Amino acid sequence: VNKITKTQTAELLKSWDNILVISHASPDGDTLGSATALIRGLEKIGKTCAFVCSDPVPEKFAYLFEKLSISKDFTMPKFAPDKIVTVDVADAKLMGKFREIYGDKVDLAIDHHATNTGFADKTWVKAESSAACEMIYELLVEMEIEIDKITADCLFTGISTDTGCFKHRNTTAKTHEIAAALMEMGADSFKINTSMFDTKTREQVLTEQKVMNSLEFFCDGRVAVVEIPQSLIKETGVLESDLEAIPSMTRQIEGVLIGITLKEKNESEVKASLRTGDLADSSEICGKFGGGGHQGAAGCAFYNMSLSETKHALIEECERYLKEIDKQ
Amino acid sequence: VNKITKTQTAELLKSWDNILVISHASPDGDTLGSATALIRGLEKIGKTCAFVCSDPVPEKFAYLFEKLSISKDFTMPKFAPDKIVTVDVADAKLMGKFREIYGDKVDLAIDHHATNTGFADKTWVKAESSAACEMIYELLVEMEIEIDKITADCLFTGISTDTGCFKHRNTTAKTHEIAAALMEMGADSFKINTSMFDTKTREQVLTEQKVMNSLEFFCDGRVAVVEIPQSLIKETGVLESDLEAIPSMTRQIEGVLIGITLKEKNESEVKASLRTGDLADSSEICGKFGGGGHQGAAGCAFYNMSLSETKHALIEECERYLKEIDKQ
Repeated sequence: VNKITKTQTAELLKSWDNILVISHASPDGDTLGSATALIRGLEKIGKTCAFVCSDPVPEKFAYLFEKLSISKDFTMPKFAPDKIVTVDVADAKLMGKFREIYGDKVDLAIDHHATNTGFADKTWVKAESSAACEMIYELLVEMEIEIDKITADCLFTGISTDTGCFKHRNTTAKTHEIAAALMEMGADSFKINTSMFDTKTREQVLTEQKVMNSLEFFCDGRVAVVEIPQSLIKETGVLESDLEAIPSMTRQIEGVLIGITLKEKNESEVKASLRTGDLADSSEICGKFGGGGHQGAAGCAFYNMSLSETKHALIEECERYLKEIDKQ
Repeated sequence: VNKITKTQTAELLKSWDNILVISHASPDGDTLGSATALIRGLEKIGKTCAFVCSDPVPEKFAYLFEKLSISKDFTMPKFAPDKIVTVDVADAKLMGKFREIYGDKVDLAIDHHATNTGFADKTWVKAESSAACEMIYELLVEMEIEIDKITADCLFTGISTDTGCFKHRNTTAKTHEIAAALMEMGADSFKINTSMFDTKTREQVLTEQKVMNSLEFFCDGRVAVVEIPQSLIKETGVLESDLEAIPSMTRQIEGVLIGITLKEKNESEVKASLRTGDLADSSEICGKFGGGGHQGAAGCAFYNMSLSETKHALIEECERYLKEIDKQ
């Protein structure tokens, strides 16, 4: 991996033009906030930019693109790019359908994932940053490019969403310092946080409600399980992204060490999402079933098993796992 | 009202000893964080302090009092105080049962409420502070008293809880700056935020679940109503404080302008809690029924009416109210 510094990144960008910025597929606030803030900064110093994303940009992020001169059709750049930059992309395969065209042509990757695979020609990684937007903030400061109100909104969005509104473990003193600076620059933190953390669609509320009605406790209340059958998804017409809040709703219950969400993807596949606090390791349990992830959040898939069979297999493994950690 | 500055407050405290610090009744993270951080600071410069609170300190705030030399029996100071200081108390009546003994003897009130009644001999108010803990932080810096790890935890707790983890409208750039400084001083933000915002008791989850099952929409989805009958409270054995999250769960639904929570207090009283976003005014609607509060959150009581009768009366008023604002 050809790792470079913030200063080298700034110098490269200053020397380039006709730059295509690519976010990761299934885009979130951080990859979109990074891309739009970077493009705004580069446009301020006269660069021509374009942006593509493999999946549609969710409506709630539309404000990030306001007043940008780039094309709003994110499926193809309107010019042949000279340079290609990815933001918040840890692996070329996360470029989705653009991997085939640009996967081996990325000139620069700006990323905060320690796991970045080094797919780009040059990579600036800062794993201690809570969000890629923290890095873009520091980059714009380094390049002495003014951060206007809307750029501050873009950067604040990425930092706030990637830290769960400053709640997750990745939040540092630096995160709060940058949030303070962005608010001074005009970021509308209240509006952004209300939209990201304090708004649910009616379908989302009703679906969460129905899913939580299936809540069961096992292993003396240390394991909580909820189920999302296909029939429920069809009945409520809920979007995949509307189910994202459910896994952590199981883990946040007092006494629960392992929260399990079982989703029936189709007739032959059940996906399990595990969430654990400090006292258990999701990835260890999912690893037993060929899955993976992090200590706090992991997943695995079960084929040709019913929801009920999946549940019993997982609970059996949890029982064994909890007995192990009880011994320690 | 005899208003004084931060510098004058610092000078007064330096010249005093045998200080009783009083928090408000039904104590929250800010009043307790302020009291414990102030006492820690004063003890560091050799002062003798005591603390009283009209209501028991909830278990989740016990860590604020760790390693403090004051008596853990908060019902009476173990010495006759020379000086009395209140923190985060906007009105003498919020001292609860200590109002009678100390209500007209308070030497200094430190408070961030613009509505402070001026009940104390001297008052330092800073309404732009998100939390009283922001003021105590600035006071300790002014007094050049070291803020150690546990004092930083106390101050972070007050700031985080009073801003809803940096989500509420009162959060400013200064709030984030102070949060950054406190984390540098050792505040364990992740642990505090997990305990305050990411932990629910089993009873709480099950009760919320049952209450949300009663969710109904009116006025083209612009009004959402949930009901908490007495029978449910008795059945689940849930604490009053475990119901606090429910009112905002109605308001956060997309399209809902007015969220209404109806709680059957006893056979003859129903309490309504209203929550509104930017587009409606809770206090105006509650005012029609002799209640009150703020634009975003207000309440009113109904006597000798059933839950269903209360609901219909409120919905009728909401219909009228929404027609009015539609005209504007």
